[in-house]
Amino acid sequence: MAITGVLRAAMMQLRVLDLETSVDFYTNVVGLFEVGRTSDGRVLLKGYDEFDHHSFVLRKAETAGMDFMGFKVASDAYLDFLAGRTKEFGLPVEIVPANADQPGVGRRVSTRVPTGHRLDFFADIEESDPKPSILNPEIWSVEPRGIGSATFDHALLFGPGSAETVRYLMEVCGFAAVEKGLLPDGNTFVTWLSCANRAHDVAVLEFDQPGKLHHVAYKLDNWNDIGHAADIMTMNEVTIDAGPMRHGATRRQMIYFFDPSGNRLETCTSGYAFYPDMPVRVWDFDHIGKGIFYYTRQLNDNFLKVVS
Amino acid sequence: MAITGVLRAAMMQLRVLDLETSVDFYTNVVGLFEVGRTSDGRVLLKGYDEFDHHSFVLRKAETAGMDFMGFKVASDAYLDFLAGRTKEFGLPVEIVPANADQPGVGRRVSTRVPTGHRLDFFADIEESDPKPSILNPEIWSVEPRGIGSATFDHALLFGPGSAETVRYLMEVCGFAAVEKGLLPDGNTFVTWLSCANRAHDVAVLEFDQPGKLHHVAYKLDNWNDIGHAADIMTMNEVTIDAGPMRHGATRRQMIYFFDPSGNRLETCTSGYAFYPDMPVRVWDFDHIGKGIFYYTRQLNDNFLKVVS
Amino acid sequence: MAITGVLRAAMMQLRVLDLETSVDFYTNVVGLFEVGRTSDGRVLLKGYDEFDHHSFVLRKAETAGMDFMGFKVASDAYLDFLAGRTKEFGLPVEIVPANADQPGVGRRVSTRVPTGHRLDFFADIEESDPKPSILNPEIWSVEPRGIGSATFDHALLFGPGSAETVRYLMEVCGFAAVEKGLLPDGNTFVTWLSCANRAHDVAVLEFDQPGKLHHVAYKLDNWNDIGHAADIMTMNEVTIDAGPMRHGATRRQMIYFFDPSGNRLETCTSGYAFYPDMPVRVWDFDHIGKGIFYYTRQLNDNFLKVVS
Amino acid sequence: MAITGVLRAAMMQLRVLDLETSVDFYTNVVGLFEVGRTSDGRVLLKGYDEFDHHSFVLRKAETAGMDFMGFKVASDAYLDFLAGRTKEFGLPVEIVPANADQPGVGRRVSTRVPTGHRLDFFADIEESDPKPSILNPEIWSVEPRGIGSATFDHALLFGPGSAETVRYLMEVCGFAAVEKGLLPDGNTFVTWLSCANRAHDVAVLEFDQPGKLHHVAYKLDNWNDIGHAADIMTMNEVTIDAGPMRHGATRRQMIYFFDPSGNRLETCTSGYAFYPDMPVRVWDFDHIGKGIFYYTRQLNDNFLKVVS
Repeated sequence: MAITGVLRAAMMQLRVLDLETSVDFYTNVVGLFEVGRTSDGRVLLKGYDEFDHHSFVLRKAETAGMDFMGFKVASDAYLDFLAGRTKEFGLPVEIVPANADQPGVGRRVSTRVPTGHRLDFFADIEESDPKPSILNPEIWSVEPRGIGSATFDHALLFGPGSAETVRYLMEVCGFAAVEKGLLPDGNTFVTWLSCANRAHDVAVLEFDQPGKLHHVAYKLDNWNDIGHAADIMTMNEVTIDAGPMRHGATRRQMIYFFDPSGNRLETCTSGYAFYPDMPVRVWDFDHIGKGIFYYTRQLNDNFLKVVS
Repeated sequence: MAITGVLRAAMMQLRVLDLETSVDFYTNVVGLFEVGRTSDGRVLLKGYDEFDHHSFVLRKAETAGMDFMGFKVASDAYLDFLAGRTKEFGLPVEIVPANADQPGVGRRVSTRVPTGHRLDFFADIEESDPKPSILNPEIWSVEPRGIGSATFDHALLFGPGSAETVRYLMEVCGFAAVEKGLLPDGNTFVTWLSCANRAHDVAVLEFDQPGKLHHVAYKLDNWNDIGHAADIMTMNEVTIDAGPMRHGATRRQMIYFFDPSGNRLETCTSGYAFYPDMPVRVWDFDHIGKGIFYYTRQLNDNFLKVVS
Repeated sequence: MAITGVLRAAMMQLRVLDLETSVDFYTNVVGLFEVGRTSDGRVLLKGYDEFDHHSFVLRKAETAGMDFMGFKVASDAYLDFLAGRTKEFGLPVEIVPANADQPGVGRRVSTRVPTGHRLDFFADIEESDPKPSILNPEIWSVEPRGIGSATFDHALLFGPGSAETVRYLMEVCGFAAVEKGLLPDGNTFVTWLSCANRAHDVAVLEFDQPGKLHHVAYKLDNWNDIGHAADIMTMNEVTIDAGPMRHGATRRQMIYFFDPSGNRLETCTSGYAFYPDMPVRVWDFDHIGKGIFYYTRQLNDNFLKVVS
Repeated sequence: MAITGVLRAAMMQLRVLDLETSVDFYTNVVGLFEVGRTSDGRVLLKGYDEFDHHSFVLRKAETAGMDFMGFKVASDAYLDFLAGRTKEFGLPVEIVPANADQPGVGRRVSTRVPTGHRLDFFADIEESDPKPSILNPEIWSVEPRGIGSATFDHALLFGPGSAETVRYLMEVCGFAAVEKGLLPDGNTFVTWLSCANRAHDVAVLEFDQPGKLHHVAYKLDNWNDIGHAADIMTMNEVTIDAGPMRHGATRRQMIYFFDPSGNRLETCTSGYAFYPDMPVRVWDFDHIGKGIFYYTRQLNDNFLKVVS
């Protein structure tokens, strides 16, 4: 198999302040589908174009933010390999049994990276409805709703020690650096990383507080869907942070917006397909604004300040 | 690296009847860029969004059709591995030295698969202009022209013994079956295969004549570009075979059209990203028309008859 | 007021073979909204972006086809003027009282043009829901559904004596010829006519049977919606006659498709805005195929044969 | 003819600080075509989809801003009517002879409205290349370039006494009010006005300085073109003021951007077609931000401050 090891960013467990308000928002606006709830009250959601049992989990809490980000790997054997290499790298490893707290998900190798984020890796996950048909499939099995989020795409993580987190993802987990943004001294402060062909599965930005989530993104089909999403957001009084816009980095077209708890979300589309033989694209400090917000060519007030 | 082995379909050498007419067509209509010519008069071309030296070669000949299809692999070491495994599989292997007939391309492992097509694999290829910038990159370095073909995408190969060719691609080269179409008896007669995240890099269809090319495809960004492409084709009196349309299989939006020599081309966009943990999608015999031409739901007269 | 006289094509009463099948089709696929039924069982429908009470009427009958096409005029006084001028032109005039058979519609001046079609003109029509909001309006009051037909757009009428029908529309009703298609002898056999800025409100084509409907069209916003419409049609097993395509004449992007009774419909978008100071655009006989079907550049088998 | 009187907003003469920089900007970025220069050094430009000789004039001056806005009317006789009615309304009338300062343009009735803007009306204007073909026309005669501006669309004028300017446009010139925005006291402070089917040809906003131009707009085909335009603007280092965005009022999708002299331009598309029997849509003071910038739902800093 040409894609081995880590296949893709595949899951996010997010903390929200009010569960039912959030479920309404994530199903009717973001367009995810609820596929179940856990005994402790968490809500499992997915995009309409995903086979995986769920890719998004809402947990009621006192503060917004992320609990963990999950990655699907190619095989159970790779989990053992990953656990060993993670320990060698000097990071903690916890093995979470199958179905422990994530219904339908096999055993997980869980670690906490230097930036303070918990990352979980799993090889097995059941399917759930809705999902694409596999016999004479129509283009969807259930009509997209809201902004029509199709598939989990990526997240941008903020925290201290980002160079070490990036090194872990590249050396241990096999991610490739796709693009990076530089400080005036030439050091890297943000890296976009891909484990396969996505323009990125995860990005990491140097920040003084650990474990922070800048945004989590689901994918749409094209720029027209981005425009439609902006209309839907306005009609639902969703706060748009930036966009419709293009990122310079990854060339994705996108909107940043906030959920009712203040977690930043992104809906994105287009951009290029990454291959590991591509050179790393670099944004120097004077152009990083353009790398993030291609049309305004400068960061907005929120970009480096508002995280959850 | 998560993507190993064969990275992507990356090259096609095509026979055309008139060279300058073809160069005009491929540059001004298809929108490829000429990057050089060989001493024996072949013309090297590429899409504007490719780093690789070239992805398309035109050779003047008495008949249309393909000379070979090329694949980029992850490493030179993999070429040795592939050469060995190909021989074990029982197929011929030729080692083509670097720069022998493809300027800028490293040594190639070349074989001929049971369906009669020559497939070449290479690990090294130089870069050439135009290509994406890597320092504070704009969305393109050179303005797209014609229909704006961005990157080489895939080809559909017709020939006898397709099951063996598919088995070779899967067992030796690490391709995954993405979708397949069945005969009334349940046997497979067409298989879409991916080596990474593309919906397919190559497809193989059972046919009574060996080595035939059904079509070769370059990628655009979205459905709007497909409509623009149809306009450009009409204004240039290009014969459109089918589309603007959607394929049921891979969900790609597309146009089939012919070059001046009768080779069928495709311009395509959208569709889903494949991952190797996805189930194979199947089109039974009664629905194969819909699998190919989603809107008409039946094959057109040309589909199984016109090849080059 | 700069637009006077006839404002726009605004209504079509269509005969269908099975009423409930048709209502399901027109509401769930075409995306019209049912706003009421008449005492004799006809069903009143409208697009989501129309203020007018209804723009489409379904009547159960033994044969498909159109009963009449309606036009909204600027004032009641203009109806009197039109009635007089129509008689002077030599056509019959019937005054249909308000609310006689069209709930919510004021008195109509009704005539039958030489091509055999009944045309009705009215100045007054009530509003009905859904309709656009007028206080701090969102982009729609009710979410579009199916293919999302927004507003009644135009119809193409087939019949003998088309030159006289065109002359009536131009000399009496103030329509302007926008484009026309010629026979080999240079005579006109199809004329596209506009009463304001639409690329056309009605077109008339010379045909040997009177009173025939070639198609009736509703409008979408853009080419992406046309692609979405084709997807929806396939998933609902609607027969597509042609498209997604562009018309050469009027430059509209479109799909021709059939309702369950065999009436041809069109969904269209884009094209240019017409002004009465524009020259008439002409398609000579050798290019009329391109004028109709810009991408295939030839009429399909159905174009001159299948009418209702 | 159903459209009489004033047909459309058709011309803008703009002051720019540097002529050649401006010509480069308007041709290569905005995508207008230069059709000639006057003996006093002004530059005549047009969109690729216009028959009219020119729709845009650049005049080198010490300050940015507009000299006059022009409207095409249906007939020379209407000019006399308009001149008389304008005098009766109490506004000055100047008759500018044909070809006096605008090559290819017939005699003009020129006035200055209470908001301080000079408005010119003309019935005759020659054609110039590029323009649409009229015999078997392709979709364009010359390939669009830059952002691909197709046709002059509208302008937003700022000045004191806006109620009187609106009254003049409606009572004398036959414009219809399409939408309006209210002050807290319920008085109107901005009115969008149409002379035919455009969502608006001109808008007028109450402002303390006379004769100010807020923006002048050319039209594109669809939202995808808006995204493309934003890309082109970034690559040409054009300052984007707002967008890609939707206006609530008129539902147009758009970008505000600045020319090198500080004149604000708009590129717009979509929205609804206006008819004079439509009710006026109203934005109350609390929602005017949404009426202008539908996605941010608030005016940006520049909206009421930056004019030329």
